[in-house]
Amino acid sequence: MVPEKPRPTLKDIALQAGVSIATVSRALADNPAVMQQTRERIQALAAELGYLPNAQARALQSSRTNTIGVVVPSLINHYFAAMVTALQDAAEAVDMAVIITNSNENPTVLASSLDFLASHGVDGIICVPDEGCADQLEELHRRSLPLVLVDRELPASTIPTVVSDPEPGIREAVALLARHNALPLGYLSGPTGTSTGRHRLDTFRQACAEAGLPEQPVFLGGYEQHQGFEGANHLIGQGVKTLFAGDSMMTIGVLEACHRAGLRIGEDISVIGFDSQPLFDLQPRPLTLIDQQVEIMAHRAFDVLHELIEGKQPQDRYLRIPTTLIERESIRTTS
Amino acid sequence: MVPEKPRPTLKDIALQAGVSIATVSRALADNPAVMQQTRERIQALAAELGYLPNAQARALQSSRTNTIGVVVPSLINHYFAAMVTALQDAAEAVDMAVIITNSNENPTVLASSLDFLASHGVDGIICVPDEGCADQLEELHRRSLPLVLVDRELPASTIPTVVSDPEPGIREAVALLARHNALPLGYLSGPTGTSTGRHRLDTFRQACAEAGLPEQPVFLGGYEQHQGFEGANHLIGQGVKTLFAGDSMMTIGVLEACHRAGLRIGEDISVIGFDSQPLFDLQPRPLTLIDQQVEIMAHRAFDVLHELIEGKQPQDRYLRIPTTLIERESIRTTS
Repeated sequence: MVPEKPRPTLKDIALQAGVSIATVSRALADNPAVMQQTRERIQALAAELGYLPNAQARALQSSRTNTIGVVVPSLINHYFAAMVTALQDAAEAVDMAVIITNSNENPTVLASSLDFLASHGVDGIICVPDEGCADQLEELHRRSLPLVLVDRELPASTIPTVVSDPEPGIREAVALLARHNALPLGYLSGPTGTSTGRHRLDTFRQACAEAGLPEQPVFLGGYEQHQGFEGANHLIGQGVKTLFAGDSMMTIGVLEACHRAGLRIGEDISVIGFDSQPLFDLQPRPLTLIDQQVEIMAHRAFDVLHELIEGKQPQDRYLRIPTTLIERESIRTTS
Repeated sequence: MVPEKPRPTLKDIALQAGVSIATVSRALADNPAVMQQTRERIQALAAELGYLPNAQARALQSSRTNTIGVVVPSLINHYFAAMVTALQDAAEAVDMAVIITNSNENPTVLASSLDFLASHGVDGIICVPDEGCADQLEELHRRSLPLVLVDRELPASTIPTVVSDPEPGIREAVALLARHNALPLGYLSGPTGTSTGRHRLDTFRQACAEAGLPEQPVFLGGYEQHQGFEGANHLIGQGVKTLFAGDSMMTIGVLEACHRAGLRIGEDISVIGFDSQPLFDLQPRPLTLIDQQVEIMAHRAFDVLHELIEGKQPQDRYLRIPTTLIERESIRTTS
């Protein structure tokens, strides 16, 4: 579906003219919000470069609302609030607005959000998918609605996708814990019905094997604080020396369990968390954690969506942003 | 504009039939999603009570999307994330969906969000207003779009409004601090361009006067963490013994300032915060704080909006939910 000869796009003109894409778009529409002199300069440049929006692109453009939809599974989860905020920053930089829906991890709610967004004039959608909505998402994609999946992926999908790669962060974390002999490790896994839950758990197990460790205790949790709390209590009961939380919300549950049990993190027990947020910094011993670089992920996802909206084929349809380990003070050394 | 003889509404029928408003609505539309027996029972009851939707209500109903818009100034702020989540719970209980926009405290962004929502088929809007958008909100209200203001109010507006009343919580807090002799108090005020910022600051000053205290140091901040951080450093420099944060985000900034300065909260310095969230519980000494009962506020705001959408005049057009002081361990006693 890639055009044989790539034509110059609004972005190409914007780069050459040294103005924003929104300004080029307005100048080509002869919008008086752009100074006449600038309008003429941009129109001349577009003609020179051979810019010619095709009928479809023109039709799309004329019905554009400059608004995108963003669908996340939670807003109480600071990670997704940060993702939405970063997506909005990226959109505002090109004069686009964002409307948000929260599926509460409920595929029925997600399905009706997608229906509403697709039928009420958004130019494109960035969605944290649920595998229960795969057919509907594939259908929107086939109907050429600009669509990007973020954070989680759908197995065997060709929808453009931006996710984080858990491997670098988790491998480094397990190696660090093995070096500090903070063993046994207790891993709190996210739901295996999500790509993130599965991939992180597989990576944890592989990293343990590579570090020469026998199988370590795992608690199959979810993406809520109470599951982290229950899992931490369960793993503490099994005698683990480290609690390794597989997402943000379970990290909070782990903190709650340690707090209630009077366990001092980094002294009585080691803790490793997921994602950055003030709660994890403002502890007597700031948490060592795996950071997903959520702002970068959001900006990349927006860039891909923006290219699709502009009628371009994105260069990369599958992007993985590496996780990194941020080492702080929550790992104790057992001699 | 109140109808002379109030007719029974969907809610009245629902109460008498012992079913949800959504079920009544569906039964009257002869929707097969409701069991035939129930449909007939509800239709008979509606006839008996003389229920007759007027043409306007019918027209509105037929174009309804069962979707409301919610406009908040931040999602990184846990207080607003909790508000949105509670609004969504209330809406889902009557089969309505929620779409969300985040103004980032920017009146221009808020204005275009309102435009988008109003022109793209939401049945009503719940908005944390910005005083810079007062005219636009009044205009939407005049055009009879169901609209409820929440958290902040507009001076002299007749738009239905649900806010929290800072007085009980702040008065009790100041009295407690005076009793513990945790003086001088340093108050971090929200922006005086918001009703919440003004009302809390006025209440703080009055409460100090009533407790027989001379004027206490005040820092005029905002609703962001870095303003709490700067304000706390400034007030610590002035020798205060208590840091009293006037909102959630500045409470986080206060924690950050104490953390960096190595001040132990509840031992070296007293801290009192605003709003409940895990970060404030999971401290060596959990924070004493003023709780706004955000879930109750959200549910009341939704109830008012829902009445407006159903074509009823709400009983209360101005609701204040009292704040409460939650006493924990972050106040030290100075002898």
